[in-house]
Amino acid sequence: MSDINSDLILFNELVEVLISEESKNPVAERIDSHKLYESLDLSLNDSPMIGDEFKKVLKDVIVSTPKTATNLFFNQLFGGRQSKAVLGDLLAVMLNNSMYTYKVAGPQVGIEQEIIRKSCDLVGYGSQSNGTFPTGGSMSNYMALVMARDSKDPECRFNGISKSLVIYTSEASHYSNAKNASFAGIGKNNIRYISTDDEGRMIPEKLEEQIIDDIDNGFIPTYVNATAGTTVLGAFDPIDMIADIADKYKVWLHVDGAYSGSVIFSAKNKHLLKGIHRSNSFSYNAHKMLGTPMTCSIILVNDKKQLHDSFSNEADYLYQTDGDDFNLGKTSFQCGRRNDALKFWTLWKSVGTKGLEQMIDHQFELAKIAKDYVRNNSDYTLYSFDDSISICFNYKNIDPVTLCTALYEHQATVVGFGSFKKSTFIRLVTINANNTKKDILNFFKVLEDFVANSPELVTEEMISSELI
Amino acid sequence: MSDINSDLILFNELVEVLISEESKNPVAERIDSHKLYESLDLSLNDSPMIGDEFKKVLKDVIVSTPKTATNLFFNQLFGGRQSKAVLGDLLAVMLNNSMYTYKVAGPQVGIEQEIIRKSCDLVGYGSQSNGTFPTGGSMSNYMALVMARDSKDPECRFNGISKSLVIYTSEASHYSNAKNASFAGIGKNNIRYISTDDEGRMIPEKLEEQIIDDIDNGFIPTYVNATAGTTVLGAFDPIDMIADIADKYKVWLHVDGAYSGSVIFSAKNKHLLKGIHRSNSFSYNAHKMLGTPMTCSIILVNDKKQLHDSFSNEADYLYQTDGDDFNLGKTSFQCGRRNDALKFWTLWKSVGTKGLEQMIDHQFELAKIAKDYVRNNSDYTLYSFDDSISICFNYKNIDPVTLCTALYEHQATVVGFGSFKKSTFIRLVTINANNTKKDILNFFKVLEDFVANSPELVTEEMISSELI
Repeated sequence: MSDINSDLILFNELVEVLISEESKNPVAERIDSHKLYESLDLSLNDSPMIGDEFKKVLKDVIVSTPKTATNLFFNQLFGGRQSKAVLGDLLAVMLNNSMYTYKVAGPQVGIEQEIIRKSCDLVGYGSQSNGTFPTGGSMSNYMALVMARDSKDPECRFNGISKSLVIYTSEASHYSNAKNASFAGIGKNNIRYISTDDEGRMIPEKLEEQIIDDIDNGFIPTYVNATAGTTVLGAFDPIDMIADIADKYKVWLHVDGAYSGSVIFSAKNKHLLKGIHRSNSFSYNAHKMLGTPMTCSIILVNDKKQLHDSFSNEADYLYQTDGDDFNLGKTSFQCGRRNDALKFWTLWKSVGTKGLEQMIDHQFELAKIAKDYVRNNSDYTLYSFDDSISICFNYKNIDPVTLCTALYEHQATVVGFGSFKKSTFIRLVTINANNTKKDILNFFKVLEDFVANSPELVTEEMISSELI
Repeated sequence: MSDINSDLILFNELVEVLISEESKNPVAERIDSHKLYESLDLSLNDSPMIGDEFKKVLKDVIVSTPKTATNLFFNQLFGGRQSKAVLGDLLAVMLNNSMYTYKVAGPQVGIEQEIIRKSCDLVGYGSQSNGTFPTGGSMSNYMALVMARDSKDPECRFNGISKSLVIYTSEASHYSNAKNASFAGIGKNNIRYISTDDEGRMIPEKLEEQIIDDIDNGFIPTYVNATAGTTVLGAFDPIDMIADIADKYKVWLHVDGAYSGSVIFSAKNKHLLKGIHRSNSFSYNAHKMLGTPMTCSIILVNDKKQLHDSFSNEADYLYQTDGDDFNLGKTSFQCGRRNDALKFWTLWKSVGTKGLEQMIDHQFELAKIAKDYVRNNSDYTLYSFDDSISICFNYKNIDPVTLCTALYEHQATVVGFGSFKKSTFIRLVTINANNTKKDILNFFKVLEDFVANSPELVTEEMISSELI
């Protein structure tokens, strides 16, 4: 067996390659998917591959892997690299604790609980709140849905679903809502998609109308998912008004803040979550706006009893010492669970709550710079709104699907497209807090230069986008 | 914002602390859970903590975090550290790709698919097989259950559960089966726990009797979970015989190999999975017997259509280039998904399939050494059986609950207890492939010395274990 010290040396050597590549080629050398297996030796064989040959394959893989930490990656609701969070996650790999018991995780339990406690304070939840670290935003939403279902139909956990449960989310919300309804045994047809206003926010009046209609038809309103940062536009549903309705009809209110829930850290932007303390559960992903490595998703629950009721379990072989408060497996979906907390804790500890606030505020400032640029340049059309770090636009009426794909295939910059109502557009996300004004302006320059050198694009006026 | 290079230097420095601690104090300095927050400064505050102060807190955390990689950690179904797998996982942190699309994961997609393809070959699944990397063994079982449910009741995905579905697992199987039945809307009361024989294996005749009884009573048999390595004894259910019954009654057969499914790599031990190719799905955790960092769980599905039917989704904002075969988000529970494949690939690539086989065989050899030691020493009573790397025993009739807790509280060694039928005992697991015969014999010496110095333990004859 090989030795950890020599592999740590190899790691450091490969990281040097990576960091140098990131500055030389911020967009990685792309391999066409159909040529992947002939371009790289990814094969697993009976015999080992060692020494220089192994190192070379790893270098090739690193060089051709999409670079998500650079200033030309804008494709996803994450990007960049917060080095103090990286430090924590590298340590988590070395420590390799499983988070289910204090016996095996020790102080890492306290690290996770401190994040949860401080987050609950920021949200304004009371002394009975708690939470856990699910594996991502979809799982956070799923855990919320399961709790809602179980609190409305407590027998369900034991005898299965017997009632006609219906759930609510906006038409602009994340697709996990549909999958989760299926997984939970509720069914995709029992989701009511509530219309959004012109800025992509759920219309509370439409929600109430639908709930009344459902009650009249014998359905049981169970769960409403409000979104803090919709996937495409980054819109915030009006939580306070939705909470009035959820209260009135006794429906579980979950706020999906996977994308933008991190505004809890910003005095300036926290108003976008007005009413958040009235929700039953709230989730946010530190691997999005706060830049930790994947994944770092947190769900907070106003009444921890609900978390325990739906997710606890008895397992004598596992829970052998210390109490439930320190044995976190009692409130998680998983059994063995990776330590996703340490990376967020090292970041938070080292920059302080104020430092996290600066990151969030900086992203909104970058968004303003991008929006101003688009607004002030007649070659662009803007499709998104204030109070969001998604900047949606088209350039010179070029079909955005064609343009994004061309930018990607030619390794100019990595950015995606999105749709809202009848429009399709490029979606730039200013989520990399290491970016500066210069980086954002450079993005537009890269795009404009690319188009200037690709005259065929200008003739592609909105053809495929009309089809979407 | 801090700089990645200086944080990598800090990482290397802290790893030196960790590795030195592991050899000096293989059992970490334990902090009583009730004194945790006063012993360590885990607090998150408005202001940053930087420089030496930050480094000191990190060192304190590292020193007191349970050491899972040492030769005195036997508490869990994982342990030790395979350095080539660590290398891959550290790189995954640096690369930070999300595995949903080829556009963002690139060659990492091929790395994941190569593992899945080779694993399917080892299992003997056909050309229509595929798989994915769930977040752990519980989630693997859950995905299998959802597929079983959806294939028996295809309308369920759309309209919710409408049928009286029942599922089967042995009384010695993992507790996730109960949780999963609840999550899936089936209900814990609709699980039938099938009796096991004296060695902890499901009795096929009892399974068939129960299925017939359920059909007679109007229930719909939907899913049988067979276990390859039960949590306590490490027993293997007789898959081939269970497959006969599953075939006959058209019930989905899932094999939960979280603990010991990795015997697919061992020519000597693969017979324990006889009939595995007849299952509908099979999962194994490379973070258990194969020693990768947490988590690395793989589910393989004989007919990939089932995976797609239950887990696919449409999301134009996400799937923009390349085909479904390269956009792995179409077959995962999650949306954003951490790269859990690279660590297993770096290990497999560098030691070869033959190297993985040696790891597995070595663990069985260590188990034989431990079992022989217990058998040949009249102070010990053995409770487990051959064909398993769990060695269950008691020593001098001392209550195992008391003894394990005392060993832990005095930092002698970390080991847990378990129960089977009416007995409770210590469960030693020889899952750390870096251990040698000497390490295993040392474990017994540590235990014996500890007892010799703790005369009060000998009077604790099986008191609390009788209560369990």
